[in-house]
Amino acid sequence: MSVVEIAPLGGCGEIGKNMTVVRQGGDMLVVDAGLSFPSAEMHGVELVIPDISYLRENAQMLRGIVLTHAHEDHIGALAYCLQHLNVPVYGSELTLAIAKRKITEDSRFDELDLRPFKSGDRIEIGSFEIEPVFVTHSIPDAHAIAIRTGVGIILFTGDFKFDFSPIDGRLSDLARLGELGNEGVTVLLCDSTNIEDPGWCPSERSVQTGFEKIFREAEGRILITCFGSNIHRVQQAFDCAHKFGRKVAIAGRSMDRNTSTAVSVGKLRIPGQTLIRLEDAKSWRNDEVVILTTGTQGEPLSALSLMSRSEYPRLQIEEGDTVVYSAKPIPGNEAAIWQTVNRLVRQGANVIYGSAHSIHVSGHGYQEEIKMMVSLTKPQYIAPVHGEPRHQFRFKKIAEQMGYQEDNLIIMENGDHLIVTQDEAYFSEPVPCGRVLVDTSGTPGVSDDLLRDRGNLASSGIVFINVAIDSDAGKLIGKPEVLSRGLHVLDGELSALTEHLQTELAKLDHADLRDTSSLQQEIGELARAFLKQQSNRRPMVVATVTDV
Amino acid sequence: MSVVEIAPLGGCGEIGKNMTVVRQGGDMLVVDAGLSFPSAEMHGVELVIPDISYLRENAQMLRGIVLTHAHEDHIGALAYCLQHLNVPVYGSELTLAIAKRKITEDSRFDELDLRPFKSGDRIEIGSFEIEPVFVTHSIPDAHAIAIRTGVGIILFTGDFKFDFSPIDGRLSDLARLGELGNEGVTVLLCDSTNIEDPGWCPSERSVQTGFEKIFREAEGRILITCFGSNIHRVQQAFDCAHKFGRKVAIAGRSMDRNTSTAVSVGKLRIPGQTLIRLEDAKSWRNDEVVILTTGTQGEPLSALSLMSRSEYPRLQIEEGDTVVYSAKPIPGNEAAIWQTVNRLVRQGANVIYGSAHSIHVSGHGYQEEIKMMVSLTKPQYIAPVHGEPRHQFRFKKIAEQMGYQEDNLIIMENGDHLIVTQDEAYFSEPVPCGRVLVDTSGTPGVSDDLLRDRGNLASSGIVFINVAIDSDAGKLIGKPEVLSRGLHVLDGELSALTEHLQTELAKLDHADLRDTSSLQQEIGELARAFLKQQSNRRPMVVATVTDV
Repeated sequence: MSVVEIAPLGGCGEIGKNMTVVRQGGDMLVVDAGLSFPSAEMHGVELVIPDISYLRENAQMLRGIVLTHAHEDHIGALAYCLQHLNVPVYGSELTLAIAKRKITEDSRFDELDLRPFKSGDRIEIGSFEIEPVFVTHSIPDAHAIAIRTGVGIILFTGDFKFDFSPIDGRLSDLARLGELGNEGVTVLLCDSTNIEDPGWCPSERSVQTGFEKIFREAEGRILITCFGSNIHRVQQAFDCAHKFGRKVAIAGRSMDRNTSTAVSVGKLRIPGQTLIRLEDAKSWRNDEVVILTTGTQGEPLSALSLMSRSEYPRLQIEEGDTVVYSAKPIPGNEAAIWQTVNRLVRQGANVIYGSAHSIHVSGHGYQEEIKMMVSLTKPQYIAPVHGEPRHQFRFKKIAEQMGYQEDNLIIMENGDHLIVTQDEAYFSEPVPCGRVLVDTSGTPGVSDDLLRDRGNLASSGIVFINVAIDSDAGKLIGKPEVLSRGLHVLDGELSALTEHLQTELAKLDHADLRDTSSLQQEIGELARAFLKQQSNRRPMVVATVTDV
Repeated sequence: MSVVEIAPLGGCGEIGKNMTVVRQGGDMLVVDAGLSFPSAEMHGVELVIPDISYLRENAQMLRGIVLTHAHEDHIGALAYCLQHLNVPVYGSELTLAIAKRKITEDSRFDELDLRPFKSGDRIEIGSFEIEPVFVTHSIPDAHAIAIRTGVGIILFTGDFKFDFSPIDGRLSDLARLGELGNEGVTVLLCDSTNIEDPGWCPSERSVQTGFEKIFREAEGRILITCFGSNIHRVQQAFDCAHKFGRKVAIAGRSMDRNTSTAVSVGKLRIPGQTLIRLEDAKSWRNDEVVILTTGTQGEPLSALSLMSRSEYPRLQIEEGDTVVYSAKPIPGNEAAIWQTVNRLVRQGANVIYGSAHSIHVSGHGYQEEIKMMVSLTKPQYIAPVHGEPRHQFRFKKIAEQMGYQEDNLIIMENGDHLIVTQDEAYFSEPVPCGRVLVDTSGTPGVSDDLLRDRGNLASSGIVFINVAIDSDAGKLIGKPEVLSRGLHVLDGELSALTEHLQTELAKLDHADLRDTSSLQQEIGELARAFLKQQSNRRPMVVATVTDV
């Protein structure tokens, strides 16, 4: 009897670090290898990747990594995976080009086994056959992935919307999705990101209207900030600039990298001689210039944030500039974004943002598109993924309105281990999963304990106490040395603490002083009690004893 | 010649900690004394209040503090002000009742000189005459404040909307605003919060529709979270509960305190025997119970957040509960709010949030209401306040469309010192202003340096090194002691550092060892260089030398 196992290692119950394992017999596949970004309380963490110990334990079974598209939350953990797993990587041309460019910045990778696919290909990987199906999304060359197994098709939608007027003219392959539905989709792992939004997501092309209005009205330079990977958006900015007789310069590393990669694989067409170097922008009149820049999320080191603080040497904001936020805030980034906007406004820029201006649309389908995906593919089981619990549970309600029974709607969390047979689907024991926190120096392994310590250090600071003793003579030498960092110290508080410790330590007898470890503990407790009693402060306290 | 000076100490170029000084000759008034909440990078800071050193320097001139309404961003710094300034406080009955209850939790205040006013009163304060004018807002008993001076009326709108179907039946006194306009408003300091929103803010009463739909459909308990100070909202929850035969229990200290204060001054009417104790809620069927609770912003210690984590002993979330978010996220709080929502959903609650449900409206007027305020009061000068620069500059553009000239539109930042005469308005030298950060123990004075240290501690941790020397003998004693906290330590890294220091210090000669302070510096530099070179880490390093 055929059995297929599905285990998400990331991306279920969250939006980010997508990675799902599919197993059949002795063959394992991984769909996507994404990262997520740290939340505010993850101090000193640069990025978050899935814990892949389950893959490492089963490395001999692993036949490949299949990428749906080239967004960070789908490919950002690839480098970390390939350090530990020697497997081929499958993806579309653009996806692999972006992934390769990203990975090969890291010199550890000499040879990568990258295997490009096209929509409609059928690729045997171990006992699986995979078939990519083109779907529209906010990056070109995105695909749903159908995996043919002994229990029918397991279909990952990847990130999708059904855009009927896509910028590159490529429509989602609805017919093929329908054919797969007729063939028999057993499990649909479906994008849930916009399940809360009723109706249909506006076409990417609707942004053209917003851009053209701005281009008609702007009398100075136009700066457009969007995600560098949003090649359709970048294409529209170029096309609009060309139409209005403006040149386009690029500011920001990721914008630069993504556009040049897209050009190299033919996914971005630069109209005429539109592209100029940022350094040459000054040779043109202000109303002949467009700057494409990074910084939609208020990232402090992005080009736009630096410009807003007058710290970007290559370009200064001028009175009369128009700045267009062609993106939406990711929850948690609002404060940083508004700070940037306020600084730009103060410098005299006309800043355009918000939903009233038709300058941004989502790359994820809304409710009706998700329902259409379900209607086309007619899956036996639906597992809403790429969503927080609020999205997954909303999806479940909507699917129930479509006639699905509770038993056929599967809310998965990371690590859940779904067993699918011809007759049923059920959960087995969870597989190892978790998050790996990579610090700002690129080193993985920041622990929860460390984060807790960092949180305490940040909120309350730390006090160091060093006491020198002569344990043979059983006496203190000199005064305790007391230092603090990050502690909100009141006047005289530390010298009072020093005196308090001196007084209290003088009461200890010879034997107390000989036991260094309990003496350290004693000093720590004395100091904590004193600071709490004096001023209700609870810093970390670290005491050392130097026995001379 | 009459001269009036206006200097905002908070609330200009920001939303929060509203406080503005108005001076005429030897008389000074302060309008509002608010706080703001810390941004994410203000580690260990509980609240932010204006720096009042300008008021303390001029304490002999200060005649009073006038409060527009009882929101934290207008009254939250009052306790701190009254510790340093012995002046009467003017406000409406509810405003003073809430302020008093808040302040007298602090035992330092034995006697408060609180002077209640009513709309239409004319109160002489020094050479000023103030006249409160009732306006609708998301808290009852809110007022604009007209200050009659030798240069005409200075009009503070306070926070307002023009709600034509207010819950308590009290309409904004439009006629009086018009009369003041005819008398002559010289400067209008106008709420700008919602200047980006076109049209009119929906009436508070529109929430009734949303509530009633939920009450009709909910089969279990209904939990409603809103700001405790939103007495109109609380009133609607009670009224709706009464209509649908449900009882109301209250969870959360601020909800409890605000509702009981409002009841005590007649601003909240409990219909029938609707109010029950939270402990008694269990005696009623689930479909007979409403819980009003705090926690709209995902505050980790709020009742709703605790419930979502199953850590609220007085109430547990059950499958079938309906949780209604009758509030909007304050930018920066989104992540915490979604975490709470997700936990509630996981527990089986039906969580209702977002603009689609008519369960929240703003308390601040939209564009057309702001234009109406300008039209009624016909000010000579307009100073948009209660807004970030993006709001102030948008206001300016809109006022220009109303026929105002640039010279009559005043963008103020905190500390700006506006001089108003019969003939002109211009800026003089700024007055001292700033923010005072109050830590979690209630102590003001967290400095920017301290915040920077805390940020560094949080992101990179700290290394503490103690070296014992005998400076007379010119030799090290034992090994350097190396400890870290919050550092992402790699295996063996600290012992490698210890050895490195020992090797390097052994190279120093007698004279080097005698100079403790430069020795400490040398140790710090060695350690920093080693850690950077080894692993690209930059923790704080603190070195001490114990000379025995």
